[in-house]
Amino acid sequence: MFSKARLDTLSDGIFAVAMTLLVLDVRLPEEFHPRDGAELLEGLAGLWPKLLPYLLSFGVLGLRWLSNIQVRSRADHVGREYVNWWLLYLLLITCVPFTTIVVGRYASLAPAIWLYAGHTLLIALVGMRLTLLTPQLAKDAHFRQWQLSATLLIISSLLAIALSFISPRSALFALALNLLAPLMRRWTNSTGAD
Amino acid sequence: MFSKARLDTLSDGIFAVAMTLLVLDVRLPEEFHPRDGAELLEGLAGLWPKLLPYLLSFGVLGLRWLSNIQVRSRADHVGREYVNWWLLYLLLITCVPFTTIVVGRYASLAPAIWLYAGHTLLIALVGMRLTLLTPQLAKDAHFRQWQLSATLLIISSLLAIALSFISPRSALFALALNLLAPLMRRWTNSTGAD
Amino acid sequence: MFSKARLDTLSDGIFAVAMTLLVLDVRLPEEFHPRDGAELLEGLAGLWPKLLPYLLSFGVLGLRWLSNIQVRSRADHVGREYVNWWLLYLLLITCVPFTTIVVGRYASLAPAIWLYAGHTLLIALVGMRLTLLTPQLAKDAHFRQWQLSATLLIISSLLAIALSFISPRSALFALALNLLAPLMRRWTNSTGAD
Amino acid sequence: MFSKARLDTLSDGIFAVAMTLLVLDVRLPEEFHPRDGAELLEGLAGLWPKLLPYLLSFGVLGLRWLSNIQVRSRADHVGREYVNWWLLYLLLITCVPFTTIVVGRYASLAPAIWLYAGHTLLIALVGMRLTLLTPQLAKDAHFRQWQLSATLLIISSLLAIALSFISPRSALFALALNLLAPLMRRWTNSTGAD
Repeated sequence: MFSKARLDTLSDGIFAVAMTLLVLDVRLPEEFHPRDGAELLEGLAGLWPKLLPYLLSFGVLGLRWLSNIQVRSRADHVGREYVNWWLLYLLLITCVPFTTIVVGRYASLAPAIWLYAGHTLLIALVGMRLTLLTPQLAKDAHFRQWQLSATLLIISSLLAIALSFISPRSALFALALNLLAPLMRRWTNSTGAD
Repeated sequence: MFSKARLDTLSDGIFAVAMTLLVLDVRLPEEFHPRDGAELLEGLAGLWPKLLPYLLSFGVLGLRWLSNIQVRSRADHVGREYVNWWLLYLLLITCVPFTTIVVGRYASLAPAIWLYAGHTLLIALVGMRLTLLTPQLAKDAHFRQWQLSATLLIISSLLAIALSFISPRSALFALALNLLAPLMRRWTNSTGAD
Repeated sequence: MFSKARLDTLSDGIFAVAMTLLVLDVRLPEEFHPRDGAELLEGLAGLWPKLLPYLLSFGVLGLRWLSNIQVRSRADHVGREYVNWWLLYLLLITCVPFTTIVVGRYASLAPAIWLYAGHTLLIALVGMRLTLLTPQLAKDAHFRQWQLSATLLIISSLLAIALSFISPRSALFALALNLLAPLMRRWTNSTGAD
Repeated sequence: MFSKARLDTLSDGIFAVAMTLLVLDVRLPEEFHPRDGAELLEGLAGLWPKLLPYLLSFGVLGLRWLSNIQVRSRADHVGREYVNWWLLYLLLITCVPFTTIVVGRYASLAPAIWLYAGHTLLIALVGMRLTLLTPQLAKDAHFRQWQLSATLLIISSLLAIALSFISPRSALFALALNLLAPLMRRWTNSTGAD
């Protein structure tokens, strides 16, 4: 058996590093030497295609992390099957900076969308498996909120992949749907528990 | 509801990574091959324009973090609105290495100052919103010190933006005013509580 | 004497950073500009030789970390000899991104395998020394599982070095044997304690 | 007043990141394409001048961190003056990767030694000031061990600076004296308390 508190510490560390590393690819080229303020503003504006995936990935990681801490369990320890899935989950989290860079550079090509949306889809599915393996899982209002946000991530990932066949650039916006999850959950709160 | 202790762990991790990543842009170029000690000293001295923003950003992040842990609350859990603002706050923190690099390279151009000072302004404003949303906030002497430091960051950010229209290079020094905050707070301590 | 809880915090931080930094070398070259989706897919497929060592190192780090938290001790504090070995262990952990990059680039050359498998061998040996130095070590079922996984890492490292003289590329697969450890341990669980 | 437990969390995070980032500069050049194993071994052997400072810095950071957790205090909170020195201390820690890179590249030039040894000297002095500011400091055997290790770091830093005027390359070895500290402390243990 493995201590859940220790697993939480490593997860928090990996989320913190992954969320901060994301920004490292949003940078002006070394050889960029603007002559005046207008050129600098232009250069900064040119970072927009990298900034959108960055914001998206930060949102996905942040909302996943929040979802995870909402799942309640009275168990102090977890078994081998749980930690195997948990390691796979962390592996997917550490890959987020990689797929974010790919989609930031090649957003106009459909395979970049498949990679990125396939990645978020896997995160949602493995996260779902992980939660259902949690011993002594409390199936309360928090659990229903967690279900809602995981389902939304799955739907928007599939939608992004479908859209990529028509217009890769607009496919990313389908994933931005996830950022609506918090708003939806606030609405749920007013009818359910918090 | 979300556990405040877990939010604190992720925040601490993100601050720690962001504060350490800052130094990665303060480096001599790969192709720099000094022939003697004098040339090396010259090369190191040439890093000064990158070092100042680095020190400034480290100071801003460190003082923000200290301010945050000063705010007292008896609440163990926070609601959805609080965590939404908290995620936005962390997003701003992870962006600090990016804007620090921009201002370190292009400090002579006004838009670099707008970006950097606008960023510190946003950090102060979102941090203020976050604190006021804290449930069961204790409005004691610590709270007044927190107000003082947030206000100082807002004023010095606005001052830096105003100065950038006259002399971008000197605008950064307006932001260095924040480093005075600890001294001011020590003075407050001698008259108030600690 | 040194507090074991504090040592655990630093170890968790170092494992979290090392596991996340691994991905930084899995990237498409800056000058890669695919004209269509097929070229991008080709470029991504070309990352496979870097991806395998990445997965391997993530697995080694993750399983080592899980093994470490399985070792039980009632001691709150550890002595100077323990922390000396512990620092050496952390040093080996921080080197994992380095040897992973080397084996990812030069997997067809035997010395790259010697470096990588020699590294995992050292991690297993130093980890073994560290565990045996743990004060008040509980020699229970968890301890036997830990022995099994450390022994497996030693055997597969030696096997990889031996194989590197015949075929360096296939040597890496010997190390992938470690990923079988969790399965073996699950089998142990069904006969022993958990 | 600031919670000492929270300060410890941020310190641990910053030490963990700094200790892991150190390895990022120990890398073979991108354009290095060895034709056979002998050339790869040569390339790896050529990393030695970067590896020594890396080991040294890892040792300095690790031993500093261990020294810090040895200092005992019954105080839960610390005042403004303490946190100001503590922030300065963390700033010095985050700079370690920078000075390590400089000394790894230009170890044959005296100013690189001045920068590095001056840095370790500052870390020792600020750490000393920080410890003496600790409220309710227990001046026991641990405190004497801490004094011994801080004094040794100061002496070896000064020795390295002095040696740099004669032979910069050998100056680094003066700093390696610090790694003797643990051995000396073990000897102290046999006569004093632990």
